[in-house]
Amino acid sequence: MSKGPIEFYYDFSSPYGYIGAMRIEDIAAAHDREILWRPILLGVIFKATNSAPLMHVPLKGEYSKHDFARTARYYNVPYKLPSKFPIASQAPARGHYWLEEQDKGLAKRFSLAVFNAYFVEDKDVSSPEVAADIAHALGVDRAAFLEAIQAPEIKQRLKDETQAAVDKGVCGSPFFIVDGEPFWGSDRLPMLSAWLERGGW
Amino acid sequence: MSKGPIEFYYDFSSPYGYIGAMRIEDIAAAHDREILWRPILLGVIFKATNSAPLMHVPLKGEYSKHDFARTARYYNVPYKLPSKFPIASQAPARGHYWLEEQDKGLAKRFSLAVFNAYFVEDKDVSSPEVAADIAHALGVDRAAFLEAIQAPEIKQRLKDETQAAVDKGVCGSPFFIVDGEPFWGSDRLPMLSAWLERGGW
Repeated sequence: MSKGPIEFYYDFSSPYGYIGAMRIEDIAAAHDREILWRPILLGVIFKATNSAPLMHVPLKGEYSKHDFARTARYYNVPYKLPSKFPIASQAPARGHYWLEEQDKGLAKRFSLAVFNAYFVEDKDVSSPEVAADIAHALGVDRAAFLEAIQAPEIKQRLKDETQAAVDKGVCGSPFFIVDGEPFWGSDRLPMLSAWLERGGW
Repeated sequence: MSKGPIEFYYDFSSPYGYIGAMRIEDIAAAHDREILWRPILLGVIFKATNSAPLMHVPLKGEYSKHDFARTARYYNVPYKLPSKFPIASQAPARGHYWLEEQDKGLAKRFSLAVFNAYFVEDKDVSSPEVAADIAHALGVDRAAFLEAIQAPEIKQRLKDETQAAVDKGVCGSPFFIVDGEPFWGSDRLPMLSAWLERGGW
Protein backbone atom coordinates (compact mmCIF):
# COMPACT_ATOMS: atom_id res chain seq x y z
CA MET A 1 0.00 0.00 0.00
CA SER A 2 1.24 3.44 -0.88
CA LYS A 3 2.22 5.60 2.06
CA GLY A 4 3.53 8.66 0.24
CA PRO A 5 3.73 12.05 1.87
CA ILE A 6 0.99 14.69 2.00
CA GLU A 7 2.27 17.39 -0.34
CA PHE A 8 1.33 20.71 1.28
CA TYR A 9 1.53 23.85 -0.90
CA TYR A 10 1.10 27.25 0.74
CA ASP A 11 1.95 30.92 0.47
CA PHE A 12 3.08 32.57 3.71
CA SER A 13 0.69 35.42 2.92
CA SER A 14 -2.38 33.14 2.85
CA PRO A 15 -4.61 33.06 5.96
CA TYR A 16 -6.19 29.78 4.85
CA GLY A 17 -2.65 28.48 4.23
CA TYR A 18 -1.82 29.37 7.83
CA ILE A 19 -4.96 27.66 9.13
CA GLY A 20 -4.06 24.62 7.01
CA ALA A 21 -0.57 24.57 8.51
CA MET A 22 -2.05 24.62 12.02
CA ARG A 23 -4.22 21.58 11.23
CA ILE A 24 -2.31 19.34 8.83
CA GLU A 25 0.17 17.87 11.32
CA ASP A 26 -2.53 16.19 13.43
CA ILE A 27 -4.15 14.74 10.32
CA ALA A 28 -0.82 13.47 8.97
CA ALA A 29 0.10 11.92 12.33
CA ALA A 30 -3.29 10.20 12.63
CA HIS A 31 -2.71 8.50 9.27
CA ASP A 32 1.02 7.91 9.63
CA ARG A 33 1.98 10.17 6.74
CA GLU A 34 4.90 12.51 6.29
CA ILE A 35 4.26 16.08 5.14
CA LEU A 36 6.18 17.65 2.29
CA TRP A 37 6.22 21.38 3.15
CA ARG A 38 6.15 23.38 -0.07
CA PRO A 39 5.99 27.19 0.15
CA ILE A 40 5.09 28.69 -3.24
CA LEU A 41 4.24 32.11 -4.66
CA LEU A 42 0.51 32.75 -5.07
CA GLY A 43 1.30 35.58 -7.50
CA VAL A 44 2.41 33.00 -10.07
CA ILE A 45 -0.80 31.00 -9.47
CA PHE A 46 -2.89 34.17 -9.89
CA LYS A 47 -1.24 34.78 -13.27
CA ALA A 48 -1.87 31.18 -14.36
CA THR A 49 -5.54 31.37 -13.35
CA ASN A 50 -6.32 35.02 -14.23
CA SER A 51 -7.14 35.59 -10.58
CA ALA A 52 -6.29 38.24 -7.99
CA PRO A 53 -5.73 38.31 -4.23
CA LEU A 54 -9.12 37.85 -2.52
CA MET A 55 -8.77 41.19 -0.75
CA HIS A 56 -8.71 42.97 -4.11
CA VAL A 57 -11.93 41.33 -5.37
CA PRO A 58 -15.22 43.19 -4.83
CA LEU A 59 -17.63 41.39 -2.44
CA LYS A 60 -15.24 38.45 -1.99
CA GLY A 61 -12.71 40.70 -0.23
CA GLU A 62 -15.11 41.76 2.54
CA TYR A 63 -16.51 38.25 2.89
CA SER A 64 -13.05 36.69 3.12
CA LYS A 65 -11.84 39.14 5.74
CA HIS A 66 -14.79 38.08 7.88
CA ASP A 67 -14.37 34.38 7.09
CA PHE A 68 -10.60 34.28 7.82
CA ALA A 69 -11.21 35.41 11.41
CA ARG A 70 -14.35 33.31 11.92
CA THR A 71 -12.64 30.17 10.58
CA ALA A 72 -9.62 30.72 12.83
CA ARG A 73 -11.89 31.07 15.88
CA TYR A 74 -13.82 27.94 14.80
CA TYR A 75 -10.59 25.93 14.93
CA ASN A 76 -9.18 27.73 17.99
CA VAL A 77 -6.27 29.05 15.95
CA PRO A 78 -4.92 32.42 17.15
CA TYR A 79 -5.25 34.92 14.32
CA LYS A 80 -5.15 38.63 13.54
CA LEU A 81 -5.39 40.16 10.07
CA PRO A 82 -1.85 41.57 9.57
CA SER A 83 -1.47 45.36 9.21
CA LYS A 84 0.29 44.81 5.87
CA PHE A 85 -1.72 42.28 3.86
CA PRO A 86 -1.19 40.61 1.48
CA ILE A 87 2.60 40.59 1.16
CA ALA A 88 5.24 39.16 -1.18
CA SER A 89 6.68 36.07 0.48
CA GLN A 90 9.89 35.45 -1.47
CA ALA A 91 12.23 36.00 1.51
CA PRO A 92 10.75 33.39 3.89
CA ALA A 93 9.91 30.97 1.04
CA ARG A 94 13.52 30.99 -0.17
CA GLY A 95 14.66 30.67 3.42
CA HIS A 96 12.54 27.53 3.83
CA TYR A 97 14.19 25.78 0.87
CA TRP A 98 17.68 26.78 1.99
CA LEU A 99 17.04 25.43 5.48
CA GLU A 100 15.49 22.27 4.06
CA GLU A 101 18.77 21.46 2.31
CA GLN A 102 20.30 21.22 5.78
CA ASP A 103 17.52 19.90 7.98
CA LYS A 104 13.89 19.11 7.04
CA GLY A 105 12.63 19.46 10.61
CA LEU A 106 14.28 22.85 10.91
CA ALA A 107 12.63 24.02 7.67
CA LYS A 108 9.22 22.96 8.99
CA ARG A 109 9.75 24.75 12.29
CA PHE A 110 10.83 27.82 10.35
CA SER A 111 7.65 27.74 8.21
CA LEU A 112 5.48 27.45 11.32
CA ALA A 113 7.38 30.29 13.00
CA VAL A 114 6.95 32.51 9.92
CA PHE A 115 3.18 31.91 9.92
CA ASN A 116 3.05 32.68 13.64
CA ALA A 117 5.11 35.87 13.24
CA TYR A 118 2.81 37.08 10.46
CA PHE A 119 -0.66 36.05 11.61
CA VAL A 120 -0.23 36.24 15.38
CA GLU A 121 2.55 38.76 16.06
CA ASP A 122 1.78 40.99 13.06
CA LYS A 123 5.41 41.06 11.87
CA ASP A 124 6.11 41.93 8.24
CA VAL A 125 7.66 38.62 7.16
CA SER A 126 8.19 39.89 3.61
CA SER A 127 11.28 41.64 5.00
CA PRO A 128 14.53 39.63 4.67
CA GLU A 129 15.61 41.06 8.04
CA VAL A 130 12.47 39.82 9.78
CA ALA A 131 12.79 36.41 8.11
CA ALA A 132 16.41 36.26 9.27
CA ASP A 133 15.36 37.11 12.84
CA ILE A 134 12.90 34.21 12.79
CA ALA A 135 15.58 31.83 11.53
CA HIS A 136 18.05 33.14 14.10
CA ALA A 137 15.61 32.38 16.93
CA LEU A 138 15.79 28.76 15.71
CA GLY A 139 19.58 28.74 15.98
CA VAL A 140 20.44 29.69 12.39
CA ASP A 141 23.29 32.07 11.57
CA ARG A 142 21.69 35.37 10.64
CA ALA A 143 24.30 36.56 8.13
CA ALA A 144 24.43 33.18 6.39
CA PHE A 145 20.64 33.20 6.07
CA LEU A 146 20.57 36.70 4.57
CA GLU A 147 23.28 35.79 2.08
CA ALA A 148 21.61 32.49 1.16
CA ILE A 149 18.22 33.96 0.27
CA GLN A 150 19.90 36.31 -2.23
CA ALA A 151 21.79 33.52 -4.00
CA PRO A 152 20.76 32.84 -7.61
CA GLU A 153 20.40 29.07 -6.94
CA ILE A 154 17.86 29.57 -4.14
CA LYS A 155 15.93 32.15 -6.16
CA GLN A 156 15.76 29.63 -9.00
CA ARG A 157 14.77 26.86 -6.58
CA LEU A 158 11.66 28.78 -5.47
CA LYS A 159 10.74 29.52 -9.09
CA ASP A 160 11.14 25.85 -9.97
CA GLU A 161 9.09 24.66 -6.99
CA THR A 162 6.29 27.09 -7.84
CA GLN A 163 6.30 26.06 -11.50
CA ALA A 164 6.28 22.38 -10.51
CA ALA A 165 3.22 23.10 -8.37
CA VAL A 166 1.43 24.84 -11.26
CA ASP A 167 2.30 21.88 -13.49
CA LYS A 168 0.61 19.59 -10.95
CA GLY A 169 -2.56 21.72 -11.04
CA VAL A 170 -2.04 23.63 -7.80
CA CYS A 171 -4.51 26.53 -8.14
CA GLY A 172 -4.59 28.15 -4.70
CA SER A 173 -3.32 28.11 -1.10
CA PRO A 174 -3.44 25.85 0.74
CA PHE A 175 -3.41 22.96 -1.71
CA PHE A 176 -2.76 19.36 -0.73
CA ILE A 177 -1.93 16.33 -2.88
CA VAL A 178 -1.92 12.83 -1.43
CA ASP A 179 -1.47 9.70 -3.52
CA GLY A 180 -2.11 11.90 -6.57
CA GLU A 181 -5.45 13.18 -5.21
CA PRO A 182 -5.73 17.00 -5.07
CA PHE A 183 -7.49 18.99 -2.32
CA TRP A 184 -7.78 22.77 -2.56
CA GLY A 185 -8.51 24.81 0.56
CA SER A 186 -8.32 24.35 4.30
CA ASP A 187 -12.05 23.55 4.10
CA ARG A 188 -11.17 20.33 2.26
CA LEU A 189 -9.18 18.93 5.21
CA PRO A 190 -12.09 16.87 6.63
CA MET A 191 -12.45 15.32 3.16
CA LEU A 192 -8.68 14.72 2.88
CA SER A 193 -8.82 13.05 6.28
CA ALA A 194 -11.73 10.85 5.20
CA TRP A 195 -9.86 10.02 1.99
CA LEU A 196 -6.86 8.75 3.98
CA GLU A 197 -9.19 6.83 6.31
CA ARG A 198 -11.11 5.06 3.55
CA GLY A 199 -8.45 5.01 0.84
CA GLY A 200 -10.69 7.05 -1.45
CA TRP A 201 -14.27 6.56 -2.63
CA MET B 1 -34.28 34.75 20.42
CA SER B 2 -34.15 35.31 16.69
CA LYS B 3 -35.42 32.42 14.60
CA GLY B 4 -35.24 33.94 11.14
CA PRO B 5 -35.00 31.82 8.01
CA ILE B 6 -31.85 30.49 6.38
CA GLU B 7 -31.54 32.57 3.21
CA PHE B 8 -30.29 30.19 0.52
CA TYR B 9 -28.97 31.74 -2.71
CA TYR B 10 -28.16 29.47 -5.67
CA ASP B 11 -27.87 29.30 -9.42
CA PHE B 12 -29.46 26.23 -11.04
CA SER B 13 -26.26 25.84 -13.07
CA SER B 14 -24.06 25.49 -9.98
CA PRO B 15 -23.02 21.95 -8.92
CA TYR B 16 -22.12 23.16 -5.42
CA GLY B 17 -25.50 24.92 -5.35
CA TYR B 18 -27.14 21.59 -6.12
CA ILE B 19 -25.13 19.82 -3.41
CA GLY B 20 -26.11 22.62 -1.01
CA ALA B 21 -29.78 22.15 -1.90
CA MET B 22 -29.51 18.42 -1.17
CA ARG B 23 -28.10 19.12 2.30
CA ILE B 24 -29.70 22.32 3.61
CA GLU B 25 -33.12 20.88 4.45
CA ASP B 26 -31.78 18.46 7.07
CA ILE B 27 -29.73 21.24 8.67
CA ALA B 28 -32.68 23.63 8.72
CA ALA B 29 -34.97 20.97 10.20
CA ALA B 30 -32.45 20.08 12.92
CA HIS B 31 -32.40 23.72 14.04
CA ASP B 32 -36.05 24.50 13.48
CA ARG B 33 -35.42 27.08 10.77
CA GLU B 34 -37.32 27.88 7.61
CA ILE B 35 -35.42 28.15 4.31
CA LEU B 36 -35.86 31.09 1.99
CA TRP B 37 -35.16 29.62 -1.46
CA ARG B 38 -33.56 32.30 -3.64
CA PRO B 39 -32.47 31.34 -7.18
CA ILE B 40 -30.20 34.04 -8.62
CA LEU B 41 -28.04 34.55 -11.71
CA LEU B 42 -24.34 33.82 -11.22
CA GLY B 43 -23.54 35.82 -14.35
CA VAL B 44 -24.45 39.01 -12.49
CA ILE B 45 -22.25 37.95 -9.55
CA PHE B 46 -19.37 37.21 -11.93
CA LYS B 47 -19.65 40.74 -13.32
CA ALA B 48 -19.73 42.25 -9.82
CA THR B 49 -16.64 40.27 -8.78
CA ASN B 50 -14.66 40.26 -12.06
CA SER B 51 -14.90 36.48 -12.03
CA ALA B 52 -15.74 33.77 -14.56
CA PRO B 53 -17.41 30.36 -14.46
CA LEU B 54 -14.97 27.91 -12.81
CA MET B 55 -14.96 25.73 -15.92
CA HIS B 56 -13.48 28.60 -17.92
CA VAL B 57 -10.60 29.23 -15.49
CA PRO B 58 -7.26 27.50 -16.19
CA LEU B 59 -6.30 24.91 -13.53
CA LYS B 60 -9.41 25.66 -11.43
CA GLY B 61 -11.65 24.26 -14.18
CA GLU B 62 -10.05 20.82 -14.21
CA TYR B 63 -9.82 20.73 -10.43
CA SER B 64 -13.46 21.71 -10.01
CA LYS B 65 -14.72 19.11 -12.46
CA HIS B 66 -12.98 16.49 -10.35
CA ASP B 67 -14.11 18.02 -7.06
CA PHE B 68 -17.81 18.35 -8.06
CA ALA B 69 -18.06 14.60 -8.60
CA ARG B 70 -15.92 13.64 -5.61
CA THR B 71 -17.90 15.94 -3.28
CA ALA B 72 -21.21 14.52 -4.54
CA ARG B 73 -19.99 10.97 -3.88
CA TYR B 74 -18.74 12.02 -0.42
CA TYR B 75 -22.27 13.14 0.49
CA ASN B 76 -24.01 10.29 -1.36
CA VAL B 77 -25.68 12.77 -3.70
CA PRO B 78 -26.39 11.39 -7.21
CA TYR B 79 -24.53 13.55 -9.73
CA LYS B 80 -23.39 13.63 -13.34
CA LEU B 81 -21.67 16.59 -15.02
CA PRO B 82 -24.36 17.76 -17.51
CA SER B 83 -23.59 17.54 -21.25
CA LYS B 84 -24.30 21.25 -21.56
CA PHE B 85 -22.51 23.06 -18.73
CA PRO B 86 -22.71 25.77 -17.51
CA ILE B 87 -26.07 27.10 -18.71
CA ALA B 88 -28.14 30.27 -18.39
CA SER B 89 -30.79 29.65 -15.76
CA GLN B 90 -33.30 32.46 -16.35
CA ALA B 91 -36.20 30.17 -17.31
CA PRO B 92 -36.30 27.99 -14.17
CA ALA B 93 -35.30 30.89 -11.88
CA ARG B 94 -38.21 33.01 -13.13
CA GLY B 95 -40.45 29.97 -12.84
CA HIS B 96 -39.48 29.57 -9.20
CA TYR B 97 -40.55 33.13 -8.32
CA TRP B 98 -43.81 32.84 -10.25
CA LEU B 99 -44.68 29.61 -8.46
CA GLU B 100 -43.67 31.08 -5.11
CA GLU B 101 -46.32 33.78 -5.51
CA GLN B 102 -48.89 30.96 -5.46
CA ASP B 103 -47.35 28.35 -3.15
CA LYS B 104 -43.98 28.41 -1.37
CA GLY B 105 -43.86 24.62 -0.98
CA LEU B 106 -44.52 24.18 -4.67
CA ALA B 107 -41.70 26.59 -5.56
CA LYS B 108 -39.30 24.63 -3.37
CA ARG B 109 -40.33 21.31 -4.93
CA PHE B 110 -39.86 22.89 -8.34
CA SER B 111 -36.33 24.07 -7.49
CA LEU B 112 -35.39 20.60 -6.25
CA ALA B 113 -36.89 19.02 -9.37
CA VAL B 114 -34.93 21.41 -11.62
CA PHE B 115 -31.68 20.50 -9.89
CA ASN B 116 -32.51 16.81 -10.25
CA ALA B 117 -33.39 17.19 -13.92
CA TYR B 118 -30.11 18.97 -14.63
CA PHE B 119 -27.57 17.13 -12.46
CA VAL B 120 -29.09 13.64 -12.45
CA GLU B 121 -31.16 13.30 -15.63
CA ASP B 122 -28.91 15.56 -17.78
CA LYS B 123 -31.84 17.61 -19.08
CA ASP B 124 -31.12 21.09 -20.43
CA VAL B 125 -33.07 23.11 -17.88
CA SER B 126 -32.13 26.40 -19.57
CA SER B 127 -34.90 25.59 -22.04
CA PRO B 128 -38.30 27.14 -21.17
CA GLU B 129 -39.95 23.99 -22.56
CA VAL B 130 -37.97 21.73 -20.25
CA ALA B 131 -38.65 24.02 -17.27
CA ALA B 132 -42.36 23.91 -18.14
CA ASP B 133 -42.28 20.10 -18.31
CA ILE B 134 -40.79 20.00 -14.81
CA ALA B 135 -43.49 22.35 -13.49
CA HIS B 136 -46.17 20.34 -15.30
CA ALA B 137 -45.05 17.15 -13.56
CA LEU B 138 -45.80 18.99 -10.30
CA GLY B 139 -49.36 19.77 -11.41
CA VAL B 140 -48.77 23.21 -12.92
CA ASP B 141 -50.48 24.36 -16.12
CA ARG B 142 -47.85 24.21 -18.85
CA ALA B 143 -49.13 27.08 -21.00
CA ALA B 144 -49.60 29.37 -18.00
CA PHE B 145 -46.03 28.64 -16.87
CA LEU B 146 -44.57 29.41 -20.30
CA GLU B 147 -46.50 32.66 -20.49
CA ALA B 148 -45.59 33.67 -16.94
CA ILE B 149 -41.82 33.33 -17.37
CA GLN B 150 -41.94 35.73 -20.33
CA ALA B 151 -43.88 38.41 -18.43
CA PRO B 152 -41.99 41.68 -17.78
CA GLU B 153 -42.90 41.62 -14.06
CA ILE B 154 -41.31 38.20 -13.48
CA LYS B 155 -38.23 39.13 -15.51
CA GLN B 156 -37.87 42.21 -13.33
CA ARG B 157 -38.45 40.15 -10.19
CA LEU B 158 -35.45 37.92 -10.94
CA LYS B 159 -33.30 40.97 -11.69
CA ASP B 160 -34.37 42.57 -8.41
CA GLU B 161 -33.75 39.40 -6.38
CA THR B 162 -30.28 39.02 -7.89
CA GLN B 163 -29.43 42.66 -7.25
CA ALA B 164 -30.71 42.38 -3.67
CA ALA B 165 -28.40 39.40 -3.21
CA VAL B 166 -25.40 41.33 -4.56
CA ASP B 167 -26.30 44.21 -2.23
CA LYS B 168 -26.15 41.77 0.69
CA GLY B 169 -22.68 40.62 -0.35
CA VAL B 170 -23.63 37.33 -2.02
CA CYS B 171 -20.49 36.49 -4.04
CA GLY B 172 -21.06 32.92 -5.25
CA SER B 173 -23.34 29.86 -5.28
CA PRO B 174 -24.41 28.50 -2.92
CA PHE B 175 -24.45 31.34 -0.43
CA PHE B 176 -26.30 31.23 2.87
CA ILE B 177 -27.21 34.02 5.29
CA VAL B 178 -28.61 33.27 8.72
CA ASP B 179 -29.22 35.95 11.37
CA GLY B 180 -27.11 38.26 9.18
CA GLU B 181 -24.13 35.85 9.14
CA PRO B 182 -22.89 34.96 5.63
CA PHE B 183 -21.60 31.52 4.55
CA TRP B 184 -20.24 31.00 1.05
CA GLY B 185 -20.01 27.49 -0.39
CA SER B 186 -21.47 24.08 0.33
CA ASP B 187 -18.22 23.41 2.21
CA ARG B 188 -19.31 25.97 4.83
CA LEU B 189 -22.41 23.95 5.80
CA PRO B 190 -20.76 22.21 8.78
CA MET B 191 -19.78 25.66 10.04
CA LEU B 192 -23.29 27.05 9.42
CA SER B 193 -24.68 24.09 11.35
CA ALA B 194 -22.28 24.73 14.25
CA TRP B 195 -23.21 28.43 14.15
CA LEU B 196 -26.89 27.56 14.62
CA GLU B 197 -26.01 25.08 17.35
CA ARG B 198 -23.89 27.48 19.37
CA GLY B 199 -25.47 30.77 18.37
CA GLY B 200 -22.17 31.99 16.93
CA TRP B 201 -18.66 32.22 18.39
